[in-house]
Amino acid sequence: MTADAEVKETARVEAFSDGVFSIAITLLVLELRVPSAGDLTSRGLSLGEALLRQWPSFLGYVTSFATILVMWVNHHRLFTLIRRTSSLFLYLNGLLLLAVAFVPFPTAVLAAHLEDAGSRTAAAVYAGTFFAIAIFYNLLWRYASADNRLLGRSIRESDRDRITRRYRIGPTAYLIAFLLAFVSVPASVGLCAALALYFASSGSRHGPEEDARP
Amino acid sequence: MTADAEVKETARVEAFSDGVFSIAITLLVLELRVPSAGDLTSRGLSLGEALLRQWPSFLGYVTSFATILVMWVNHHRLFTLIRRTSSLFLYLNGLLLLAVAFVPFPTAVLAAHLEDAGSRTAAAVYAGTFFAIAIFYNLLWRYASADNRLLGRSIRESDRDRITRRYRIGPTAYLIAFLLAFVSVPASVGLCAALALYFASSGSRHGPEEDARP
Amino acid sequence: MTADAEVKETARVEAFSDGVFSIAITLLVLELRVPSAGDLTSRGLSLGEALLRQWPSFLGYVTSFATILVMWVNHHRLFTLIRRTSSLFLYLNGLLLLAVAFVPFPTAVLAAHLEDAGSRTAAAVYAGTFFAIAIFYNLLWRYASADNRLLGRSIRESDRDRITRRYRIGPTAYLIAFLLAFVSVPASVGLCAALALYFASSGSRHGPEEDARP
Amino acid sequence: MTADAEVKETARVEAFSDGVFSIAITLLVLELRVPSAGDLTSRGLSLGEALLRQWPSFLGYVTSFATILVMWVNHHRLFTLIRRTSSLFLYLNGLLLLAVAFVPFPTAVLAAHLEDAGSRTAAAVYAGTFFAIAIFYNLLWRYASADNRLLGRSIRESDRDRITRRYRIGPTAYLIAFLLAFVSVPASVGLCAALALYFASSGSRHGPEEDARP
Repeated sequence: MTADAEVKETARVEAFSDGVFSIAITLLVLELRVPSAGDLTSRGLSLGEALLRQWPSFLGYVTSFATILVMWVNHHRLFTLIRRTSSLFLYLNGLLLLAVAFVPFPTAVLAAHLEDAGSRTAAAVYAGTFFAIAIFYNLLWRYASADNRLLGRSIRESDRDRITRRYRIGPTAYLIAFLLAFVSVPASVGLCAALALYFASSGSRHGPEEDARP
Repeated sequence: MTADAEVKETARVEAFSDGVFSIAITLLVLELRVPSAGDLTSRGLSLGEALLRQWPSFLGYVTSFATILVMWVNHHRLFTLIRRTSSLFLYLNGLLLLAVAFVPFPTAVLAAHLEDAGSRTAAAVYAGTFFAIAIFYNLLWRYASADNRLLGRSIRESDRDRITRRYRIGPTAYLIAFLLAFVSVPASVGLCAALALYFASSGSRHGPEEDARP
Repeated sequence: MTADAEVKETARVEAFSDGVFSIAITLLVLELRVPSAGDLTSRGLSLGEALLRQWPSFLGYVTSFATILVMWVNHHRLFTLIRRTSSLFLYLNGLLLLAVAFVPFPTAVLAAHLEDAGSRTAAAVYAGTFFAIAIFYNLLWRYASADNRLLGRSIRESDRDRITRRYRIGPTAYLIAFLLAFVSVPASVGLCAALALYFASSGSRHGPEEDARP
Repeated sequence: MTADAEVKETARVEAFSDGVFSIAITLLVLELRVPSAGDLTSRGLSLGEALLRQWPSFLGYVTSFATILVMWVNHHRLFTLIRRTSSLFLYLNGLLLLAVAFVPFPTAVLAAHLEDAGSRTAAAVYAGTFFAIAIFYNLLWRYASADNRLLGRSIRESDRDRITRRYRIGPTAYLIAFLLAFVSVPASVGLCAALALYFASSGSRHGPEEDARP
């Protein structure tokens, strides 16, 4: 197989993954319900009041959008290091996409039940989904990076090990978020949000100066 | 990082952004409601009459389609100038996409309430969304263009400054549209439509001759 | 602007257009309604009978899928000839995409009303949408091909004129389909289907041998 | 037509196909219903119980996601061998996409009726859809590979024949699954799942070592 065919193969996995990430992130808007005129009359609310009462939906929209975006940025970053693919790699990536494409569902469950008796279950489903994603991310990266199996030849060992260390935190941290759901819903959801910020910021710590250097 | 890897990185941000723009623009059709047979009977309308009474939905479809299209053309144009990415840039772009992907919701709210007591709130939400988009566009461009941080080396200073000036109008103009919503709904929506035309036309003022020149 | 930047620009219009075409074509499945268990009981039907009674939906799915596919193949073919873009071209292409993305709506209207009093209106809306698409295709092609404005230098005049002639048929033929809707619904829908086949076949008349030649 | 134009043409068919595959796979999540608060009260269930009772939906989500993913990996693999396109090829590929984009519907039907009297019909529709996909895959590959019509010059005959043999199994096996639906629903669905694993594994049998070799 020529070097050219390799580039083409990676390109198509990225295109497919980008498709799933961008569709999952855009479908989130379909969850937001437009209050109907009849609805407002029967509940005696103005449109503004009705929209304000939907705050858990808007919070869910922003949180899930941010989380999927951070996942995409990290996926994107991995693929700047990965140069080759294999069938097993494609399926591990598919497992990750399965969980990413699922995110709109736990988000909708959380938004619908944040204020009722189901809130602990909803938060557990929410954190549990991210726990699964963290596991799948680690599987994908461990498989691709072991013995530089699918990485470019020019990658520095320190870069590889830095990513391995950063990803290792995910499963444990999201497992804690999952368990916290049964104790305190705000603590569980807050930890999920903090982890999104952590994965966003630890990537940008090295910032534009490094990434943009030619 | 080689020049080649840079091109690849920009390509994937564009692919992801194109995904979000094209999905958001295509999801708009899901808002259009097909009048059911039972519905027509109970309201004593023919299919043609029922469809005509849905005019605010069709107006909303066309307006939002046009606005997202203009945003995409402008995004596309920015990326002919931007050659590098950074983590912060990816998140600023993500913030913009968050607002773009949200557009179907205020559009649906406006279509549903254009003719009732909620029209001012609906128009304010609509113009407010575009105000947020204008702010995010400016953040993205200022970040990318300051000191030519992420631009190609061959860009002319005059081109860069022309874009900066053109984008500066956005936040102020959409803020006016937002405030107008509380005074006159048609004036607010009309200003939004006029601004879409402005951003469409000011880009094409230089027209095919310039853009297509080899 | 370098030749390289030109290729990139066309690539992104194609990516965006492909996004809209592929999303519109895939969203069609969301129209298909799954008969619920309660529904079957109340209507005294087996699942098989209920699915068979939904035949206009399945017909609509296949017809619209085929039509959007043919449109995409033709769009794809145009872009093998078009090498440059301009702002006006982007907006003309956007007008075409507006109509393509709209197709799921008239399809759903036709499927819902094929067997009731609204069938003529539904067929007129259906054929009318394709009439608009034919007009927009002609605008796009005329603009791009006049004086070879946006075409590659190596294009043969005969190829260009063949396309111009083939496209010229569209608006007239779909206008006839639109008018036929008020006389005979099957004739109108049948003409639309025949035209899809025509635009599919006249493209492939020259077939694999020609297209695949290196 | 230059070699360059050829690459571009294949690239766009792949982009369009990737779009349809990734959208169909991501739309599956829209089928999953969020139990509402009112719903839980009226049925006297906790959120956790209500979610557990939806197990056929989750099973359907995972099965269809896996099946579409396997189809995509196989489609992807075919296109590493196919270098040229033709109009007929585009339409055969379109026929395949028609069936792939349809998958969410039989999945939803199966999930909705797995536990009631419609289960045999639902399983037959499910297996029947995969039967159609298997037929279309064979048509596409036979057309492209006959006399190496659209394949690269460097393809080994043994590779081509291995694919032909592997695909030949599909139609017969899915026909058996279709017929089994009228005898035993679990046997039919189980065979579909087993076939997805077969098509996944027989591709990866040669595994990373071979595929990743430069």
